[in-house]
Amino acid sequence: MTHTASVVGASGFTGGELLRLLRGHPAFEIVQATSREYTNKTVGSVHPNLRELDLRFSEPTDLASVDVLFAATPHGVSMEHIDAFREAADTIVDLSADFRLDSEDQYDQWYDGHSRPELLDESVYGLVERHRDELAGASLIAAGGCNATAAIVGLGPLFDDGILAGDERIVVDVKVGSSEGGAGGGKASSHAERSGVVRPYAPTGHRHEAEIEQAFGCETAFSAHAVDMIRGAAATCHVFPDEPVSKADLWSAYREAYDDEPFVRLVAGGSGVYRYPEPKAVAGSNYAEVGFELDPGNERIVVFSAIDNMMKGSAGQAVHAANVALRIDETAGLDFQGLHPVGAP
Amino acid sequence: MTHTASVVGASGFTGGELLRLLRGHPAFEIVQATSREYTNKTVGSVHPNLRELDLRFSEPTDLASVDVLFAATPHGVSMEHIDAFREAADTIVDLSADFRLDSEDQYDQWYDGHSRPELLDESVYGLVERHRDELAGASLIAAGGCNATAAIVGLGPLFDDGILAGDERIVVDVKVGSSEGGAGGGKASSHAERSGVVRPYAPTGHRHEAEIEQAFGCETAFSAHAVDMIRGAAATCHVFPDEPVSKADLWSAYREAYDDEPFVRLVAGGSGVYRYPEPKAVAGSNYAEVGFELDPGNERIVVFSAIDNMMKGSAGQAVHAANVALRIDETAGLDFQGLHPVGAP
Amino acid sequence: MTHTASVVGASGFTGGELLRLLRGHPAFEIVQATSREYTNKTVGSVHPNLRELDLRFSEPTDLASVDVLFAATPHGVSMEHIDAFREAADTIVDLSADFRLDSEDQYDQWYDGHSRPELLDESVYGLVERHRDELAGASLIAAGGCNATAAIVGLGPLFDDGILAGDERIVVDVKVGSSEGGAGGGKASSHAERSGVVRPYAPTGHRHEAEIEQAFGCETAFSAHAVDMIRGAAATCHVFPDEPVSKADLWSAYREAYDDEPFVRLVAGGSGVYRYPEPKAVAGSNYAEVGFELDPGNERIVVFSAIDNMMKGSAGQAVHAANVALRIDETAGLDFQGLHPVGAP
Amino acid sequence: MTHTASVVGASGFTGGELLRLLRGHPAFEIVQATSREYTNKTVGSVHPNLRELDLRFSEPTDLASVDVLFAATPHGVSMEHIDAFREAADTIVDLSADFRLDSEDQYDQWYDGHSRPELLDESVYGLVERHRDELAGASLIAAGGCNATAAIVGLGPLFDDGILAGDERIVVDVKVGSSEGGAGGGKASSHAERSGVVRPYAPTGHRHEAEIEQAFGCETAFSAHAVDMIRGAAATCHVFPDEPVSKADLWSAYREAYDDEPFVRLVAGGSGVYRYPEPKAVAGSNYAEVGFELDPGNERIVVFSAIDNMMKGSAGQAVHAANVALRIDETAGLDFQGLHPVGAP
Repeated sequence: MTHTASVVGASGFTGGELLRLLRGHPAFEIVQATSREYTNKTVGSVHPNLRELDLRFSEPTDLASVDVLFAATPHGVSMEHIDAFREAADTIVDLSADFRLDSEDQYDQWYDGHSRPELLDESVYGLVERHRDELAGASLIAAGGCNATAAIVGLGPLFDDGILAGDERIVVDVKVGSSEGGAGGGKASSHAERSGVVRPYAPTGHRHEAEIEQAFGCETAFSAHAVDMIRGAAATCHVFPDEPVSKADLWSAYREAYDDEPFVRLVAGGSGVYRYPEPKAVAGSNYAEVGFELDPGNERIVVFSAIDNMMKGSAGQAVHAANVALRIDETAGLDFQGLHPVGAP
Repeated sequence: MTHTASVVGASGFTGGELLRLLRGHPAFEIVQATSREYTNKTVGSVHPNLRELDLRFSEPTDLASVDVLFAATPHGVSMEHIDAFREAADTIVDLSADFRLDSEDQYDQWYDGHSRPELLDESVYGLVERHRDELAGASLIAAGGCNATAAIVGLGPLFDDGILAGDERIVVDVKVGSSEGGAGGGKASSHAERSGVVRPYAPTGHRHEAEIEQAFGCETAFSAHAVDMIRGAAATCHVFPDEPVSKADLWSAYREAYDDEPFVRLVAGGSGVYRYPEPKAVAGSNYAEVGFELDPGNERIVVFSAIDNMMKGSAGQAVHAANVALRIDETAGLDFQGLHPVGAP
Repeated sequence: MTHTASVVGASGFTGGELLRLLRGHPAFEIVQATSREYTNKTVGSVHPNLRELDLRFSEPTDLASVDVLFAATPHGVSMEHIDAFREAADTIVDLSADFRLDSEDQYDQWYDGHSRPELLDESVYGLVERHRDELAGASLIAAGGCNATAAIVGLGPLFDDGILAGDERIVVDVKVGSSEGGAGGGKASSHAERSGVVRPYAPTGHRHEAEIEQAFGCETAFSAHAVDMIRGAAATCHVFPDEPVSKADLWSAYREAYDDEPFVRLVAGGSGVYRYPEPKAVAGSNYAEVGFELDPGNERIVVFSAIDNMMKGSAGQAVHAANVALRIDETAGLDFQGLHPVGAP
Repeated sequence: MTHTASVVGASGFTGGELLRLLRGHPAFEIVQATSREYTNKTVGSVHPNLRELDLRFSEPTDLASVDVLFAATPHGVSMEHIDAFREAADTIVDLSADFRLDSEDQYDQWYDGHSRPELLDESVYGLVERHRDELAGASLIAAGGCNATAAIVGLGPLFDDGILAGDERIVVDVKVGSSEGGAGGGKASSHAERSGVVRPYAPTGHRHEAEIEQAFGCETAFSAHAVDMIRGAAATCHVFPDEPVSKADLWSAYREAYDDEPFVRLVAGGSGVYRYPEPKAVAGSNYAEVGFELDPGNERIVVFSAIDNMMKGSAGQAVHAANVALRIDETAGLDFQGLHPVGAP
């Protein structure tokens, strides 16, 4: 059975990624891709990997009726247009931050408030590994923030297993690629200024912190750094459990959480070049790599997680969640394995 | 119908790429992957994108009986072991240079001779766009060299259409990524020394020159430069036809050659960021992008072509040729479209 | 003796490079740095390497009286403001294209004409290796284009020595870094789109072709490619002399030309990792590396040259020329040797 | 007055950097550069930026008598050869870890013990900002580890000012370039495998942790990540003071510590692209950039520091310390300002 789909905001990076995934998806048919800036241009003129896709961008004001509408628009757009979106489609998957948090208070604290707070109860966070049951049949899905996703996938088993109780202090140090900044350009993101950086940005107060704290109820000290890659988010979480923990405890917690998950790889030590999670090992794929190390001297657990911010951290998570919502094969359309070798992902 | 396949030399870069393609191929089943260095280790310990593949490297001395054997071994190995290969499989696809040239003389001139020259008549060059008919049913296939492939795909239509006659001087200036050097390491290929380079190598006398000259019978002045990418070969061919030619003539020649080819994109001018062929637009895919520009002031045609050296320039070409040889869908297993945005491919 | 200097257009990349050089120059004192966009901001807020420089940008409309004015402005600005520049300073060093060509006809052909053609006779091309005598005492100097400089330094000895006569066809294939595009930004130059490229641009009709043809009177087929570095221009020149030539002839020609030149290194073969010219070996320095190889089979000489486009190809050349014009030590202020190892320069 | 100098282990990366600095140093004359691997080869054949240096590597067994001997050898070499070194020179500056720690116990814990523990009292840690007085006249100097240097420069003012007392938990998350691995090569450091990484290494138990703990007496949770640059170490320190602290307190602490330091730049907020410390802003220079941000919600201070690991983190620190030891101008030979723009430093 084929579901019709549209992508609103399809000329941006995550919009293009959605089109790539939907084009290769056995259960979806792309009906519409909107873009204000590139209306009437071919999709391939913006996304060179999609030159074979016979489709032109259309005005976002004239939405086609579809089964699933994916919104890849900037923060604030979805909450403004949600009624039009829901009129056009039964299932909405929003890639912005507009429906990720649970309460109006959080939007007051971290964003500029929310115009449709009554919908926050209804929306489901798109990370399948933590919300599979709620996502089945959901009609309003909010794909998680890329940095938050990396951290949540990494830390989840520690909370689920009781190794962390939620009252510990958690340090999350994230390294991200330039695609996170979107297709806009600007001086700071020019190649000459952005290449080769280790550049702190939003060193405190990053909005994704709210998603992590919502997931676990813990205090999170979050900092992000831009590094020289295009795709990818790597979270290093430094946590200090109250009670001593062994390596075997960690393996047990992570294996229980992820052994049956189709999109999580445990990579924790071992041999070879790739011994811990790395974004380049998952570039283009929907995998999250998760690993850990124990530092007995400091009573510390270091958790590493790596995702492609445009896939597991955005468009891939959105398609994964849509698969679950529509009760089709969870992995459909997400079978790309990644490349080796590959450069700045 | 499923064909069994093995990969000899599977721990190298192109060997891993073959495994990636065969794993996702609807008509192939991987039976064996050999590696002397990594015998008994998991494939995923070397190729991190293949951690989900439940397979260990085996000794190359104990070849399984399969339908197709892919040899991803260094130059000289296949000609030495060709009898064992043919005993193990009906169809051999060799990714080395051992069976690319037509005559012993060429091997005397460009390599260190050939131990099995009687097989050179039988082997078919793997570039489907130029050898589709011969490849159907072929039992010994030689995937082309990556730089040669880039140049041949770019220049072919000019010769086929008679714009070039073969007596002109052709300059081929190629830019290649570091995966071309293989998985070996070494000081010159260390990250600190190799990053950010525009480094001439084999500035004259590169062996791929022989393949281009064989294809067209023309004198070719070939130079290659290492640049900062991992995957990718981009050929810029500067040619000077004897007779004046118009842009319409060029479009006609290239459209006739490639409009029906599933793996060649014409990218010649137009709008947007990606107006000419670029390796990063085809990274991970089996596409060749081909474009051109006319320089009336200099009576010059500049032809640009871009491939992923590990795909269209090696493993992808090999699978494409195998598909044709086995008379299955030519595009099977080669549907990855590439990514956007993506960094050093 | 100290000369006062000003930099007009100092917030751009070459403007910042001029400030860096003049700050460390024993014979110059920086009096003024102008910028319309950043008026009153500190130089260090734009150029982070110059935070120690106690200087703010001033309006370009209020020029200080100095000994030497360096103009690092876009094409067309200098010819418009040349009278104001000459009122402010006895010696003008212009880094734009406004005074590089000799005749109004050339500006009609390659640019949009010229508003002050009477000055073209007076201006001297800034490449010291070819114009040392004319530069001594010159009052209007035009620093050469970066790509043209790379090609001219590489090819010069072949013409001077008579190996090339000027009636041969010359192919110049240049690879350049992103700093060549300036500090402006824009989608095509964003990190996500520009990283990892081998991107043809201006594949024919590049304006620097005019400078090469002016230098040698030869027909030049020029193409440029953006590659993944920030600083650097590498020219590969493919030339086909009418008469046979030996490697010894080439060494003789290049040694005679460059053995006494303080800023040209011959790098032609030899051992180690760096056997031919490479931009990263000269990043930050005023050196040009020049090398060559002979291809007897094709009667071809391949000439390689590599510069830092912002140094030898712009600001360094400008300071070098100013040193000669003012008859001070030619190498003053230009003693930085470059780094090893270093990445995308 | 000129001091004679030799570099033992001069073919490695930090050895080459020492030669570069000493060559441009007004008070040093290079007498000898040793290398076992490259004996009798020119320095320029290994370090392309030093082609103008008329010097060949000599055997390390035949040490010249000099004023200062710089040892750029692997860990364990200096302690073995220290008697020969001291016979050859009055002042030894060791760039390895052999004399950085104060006690044999520490070497037992973090290394494989120490063969000359009686010298540990005598040796002085080379970081001038913290050991200026001890370094004056010192005869045995141990340049600090690059990661440790970055962290110590960043955290020092917090301890000096009493904002941290030493009983707090400190998280140090470091991002480093590939030059840190040295000139050796190897598969993990090949360009194809190392490009574009965010790769955890030594996630716990990194030896530089010992230097930080020695400096401050605090418990340090240290993790390092390889990222895609060549030069550079960036430390992000997450600290949680017991008492509340204001931004003004932080500025006061850091200004007092660094306002008069010639090689430390405070970069904490402000406008423009470069608002926090970045390794590329100091590449090639001896500067450390230090900045901070306050996270009131988490009672956290985030401290950022960035150095060129081969300069402030090694060779530059060594020359700086030697300047102080010999009581010459502290900044002599270290005046390079860095570049803008510049890529992967």
